[in-house]
Amino acid sequence: MASIQHIHQYLDDHLDESLAELMTYCAQPSVAASGEGIPACAELTGAMLRRRGFEVELIETGGSPVVYGYRPGRSEKTLLFYNHYDVQPPDPLDLWVSPPFEPEIRDSKMYARGVSDDKGHVVSRLFALDALLAEDGELPCGVKFLIEGEEEISSPHLGPVIRENLEKFAADACIWEFGGVNHEESPGLTLGMRGICYVELSVETASQDAHSGLGGSIFPNAAWRLVWALRSIKGSDGRVQIPGFYDNIRPPTGRDRAMLAALPPRIDDLRGRYGVKSFLGGTEHELELRIKEVFEPSATICGLDAGYQGKGSKTVLPHRASAKMDFRLVPDQRPEDIFEKLRRHLDAEGFEDVHLHYHGGTTPARSDPDDPFFKLVVDAAEPIYGKPVVVEPIIGGSGPSSFFIHDLGLPVATSGVGHPGTQAHAPNENLRIDLYLKGARHAANILKAFGET
Amino acid sequence: MASIQHIHQYLDDHLDESLAELMTYCAQPSVAASGEGIPACAELTGAMLRRRGFEVELIETGGSPVVYGYRPGRSEKTLLFYNHYDVQPPDPLDLWVSPPFEPEIRDSKMYARGVSDDKGHVVSRLFALDALLAEDGELPCGVKFLIEGEEEISSPHLGPVIRENLEKFAADACIWEFGGVNHEESPGLTLGMRGICYVELSVETASQDAHSGLGGSIFPNAAWRLVWALRSIKGSDGRVQIPGFYDNIRPPTGRDRAMLAALPPRIDDLRGRYGVKSFLGGTEHELELRIKEVFEPSATICGLDAGYQGKGSKTVLPHRASAKMDFRLVPDQRPEDIFEKLRRHLDAEGFEDVHLHYHGGTTPARSDPDDPFFKLVVDAAEPIYGKPVVVEPIIGGSGPSSFFIHDLGLPVATSGVGHPGTQAHAPNENLRIDLYLKGARHAANILKAFGET
Repeated sequence: MASIQHIHQYLDDHLDESLAELMTYCAQPSVAASGEGIPACAELTGAMLRRRGFEVELIETGGSPVVYGYRPGRSEKTLLFYNHYDVQPPDPLDLWVSPPFEPEIRDSKMYARGVSDDKGHVVSRLFALDALLAEDGELPCGVKFLIEGEEEISSPHLGPVIRENLEKFAADACIWEFGGVNHEESPGLTLGMRGICYVELSVETASQDAHSGLGGSIFPNAAWRLVWALRSIKGSDGRVQIPGFYDNIRPPTGRDRAMLAALPPRIDDLRGRYGVKSFLGGTEHELELRIKEVFEPSATICGLDAGYQGKGSKTVLPHRASAKMDFRLVPDQRPEDIFEKLRRHLDAEGFEDVHLHYHGGTTPARSDPDDPFFKLVVDAAEPIYGKPVVVEPIIGGSGPSSFFIHDLGLPVATSGVGHPGTQAHAPNENLRIDLYLKGARHAANILKAFGET
Repeated sequence: MASIQHIHQYLDDHLDESLAELMTYCAQPSVAASGEGIPACAELTGAMLRRRGFEVELIETGGSPVVYGYRPGRSEKTLLFYNHYDVQPPDPLDLWVSPPFEPEIRDSKMYARGVSDDKGHVVSRLFALDALLAEDGELPCGVKFLIEGEEEISSPHLGPVIRENLEKFAADACIWEFGGVNHEESPGLTLGMRGICYVELSVETASQDAHSGLGGSIFPNAAWRLVWALRSIKGSDGRVQIPGFYDNIRPPTGRDRAMLAALPPRIDDLRGRYGVKSFLGGTEHELELRIKEVFEPSATICGLDAGYQGKGSKTVLPHRASAKMDFRLVPDQRPEDIFEKLRRHLDAEGFEDVHLHYHGGTTPARSDPDDPFFKLVVDAAEPIYGKPVVVEPIIGGSGPSSFFIHDLGLPVATSGVGHPGTQAHAPNENLRIDLYLKGARHAANILKAFGET
């Protein structure tokens, strides 16, 4: 078996080839929200796995197919990589320096929609496999990939696919789709994720728009109805006003608080990066902000749409208006329960006319921090990053980790190529090349250690 | 001098030529909100007047030029036509049956953006002049045209242009840019218009959008700030909450109420046309609804814009949000005063972060119903329409009539080619050909009567 030095040497020597593969992958649009490029990207993902000797299956879901791949290894143990090939919509297009689906390297970064979230993660892991296969001719352990195509729209079909294929996806541990360094260049490990409930509110007050001079004083206005309904959900004090919204919430334990307290300060970093002048609730205290970020559920307006939005003015009374919203949930809130409570709340407040569409949801979930897999992932990271791993009990983002933690019974660890300036979900999404290489090294170290213990 | 029968015969015989000219005029975009086609349409308007022997001037305003035209006539008296060559934006484009700037005649109507508001009015008046000139070789009275290019964006430059050119625009009476029949085919005469104050509210809470999983619980959200600010302006009871908003309002007089009571019922018509299920305040009473429509000021959200509005979901926390709003004003409210009160209100409610842009405004204005010009206009209409003229003391729409009534001291009457299904400001704007001919006849009758009395 090749030494880890040989493996790393292979990665150094073949970086350009891997980056070329990543550019090809990112040039293929795969926007789950609109469906753009999804079938082609699923095929491409399958082909990339087959090239590495994986047995591949594209599992139909009713939405984007799930790409499944399996290649046995030296050890009986199996590591499951969960990733996704879909990306966020690229809008607003005018804020991109280079076009989102024309990957470009500049200043030691690759820029493209999806280059970090999540295609860089996919290809960096394949790159680690390439090194192990080139040096040893086989993998140190069995490897499975579950690469879905609807992560960015809250994975509406993943739960049934996993629950109907528990044996196929059976493994001993799971590496999650993301990971990377924080703003101090320390690698991170996250043990859990908030859930999400994504909804769209829409109102229609008439069969067509009207002249505002005619209708202003006498016609209902869909935009006003929407504004009032939204205001009934959350007031300017930041408190969600849906009855029962804060039920079933487990406060952070002492250990949770200790883990959060050990995280580096970053208020200044967030201020600089996002240009945020003040934080919600006026919090200026590092630990308080950390607790608020991940242990408090949130209600976010993601988009508002009504009437005329072009240049200048148009005196129109809109007959339709809509808002996209996400609720980030903490254990033990459940998206289906929040959706029902929201509907009941709107009805009770007189907003029966506000239609609710459920775009999808995931349940919050946390791994057991004492599982030995986490020590393995941490030990595999520190020689590469030269810094201790920062462990977070739960993070603010969401993903379908509940299916892996609760349904497949796996410890789920994070590892990857991300950094805080990655601009995931925003224009100019990017990947730092140095971290791409480190992420591949970490994956190789994990696979080797996992197979050998 | 030719008899009115000869004049009308000319109009019958030359209708197709006039419609062809109107199609050419409508094919020229002239969207004041975006500036699209404005200079070309000003030139075209000037050329159309010059062709009729008018002395023409394009007056620079800082925005769209004002097209001025003058041709003396037999009598010393001068009639001023106020019209506009600009049109509303054509969005939403996907709801048009035929493209907005490719005029098409079907089912005895012409469809195009601006065909009714206001190009049909302009060309129908030129058509009347053509008939008078063809039959008599001269006009019965002096005729001036003031055709502006910013009516659809609240005429921001018209006031200064008129006040600096009082002599140029001096006349004895004014025919307004619109008019036509109601849903019972009765011709209308309106004696006044509400004013308008058009504003844009915008909020910026950070330098870029954030992932809602990161920022949801800790970052300010521009869309929420906007929703809360809007809600502070008007609640679901429909009452505007800006302190002092309802000051300076003159209630309707007994004569006003009598004029409104004489108007035909139309709740059923509005219900059918707009698909409105109920009216604001639950009003089901014809007179109450008429009073509410024109004697109550309104606050309308014309557009909402924030974050992601595409298909499906995007988990983004928007750093920018904006809303377009118009306030319709009644005598003696003033747009500048309302704008100041709105700013003070937002500041007092803690919305100093909400930026206000003033897109423009006009002051409400009403003519003296006893001016003999109104009897002339009514008498000129009845033989054409075969029905009594319906007189409204003030209408819900707005326009810069205050400059004509208060600055130029003119009685301002309406006459024209409109009908209730004209879809002004909406997709599939249209003009009924039969009413186009009647509007031209009415203009010819007015000119003849005005010159001869």
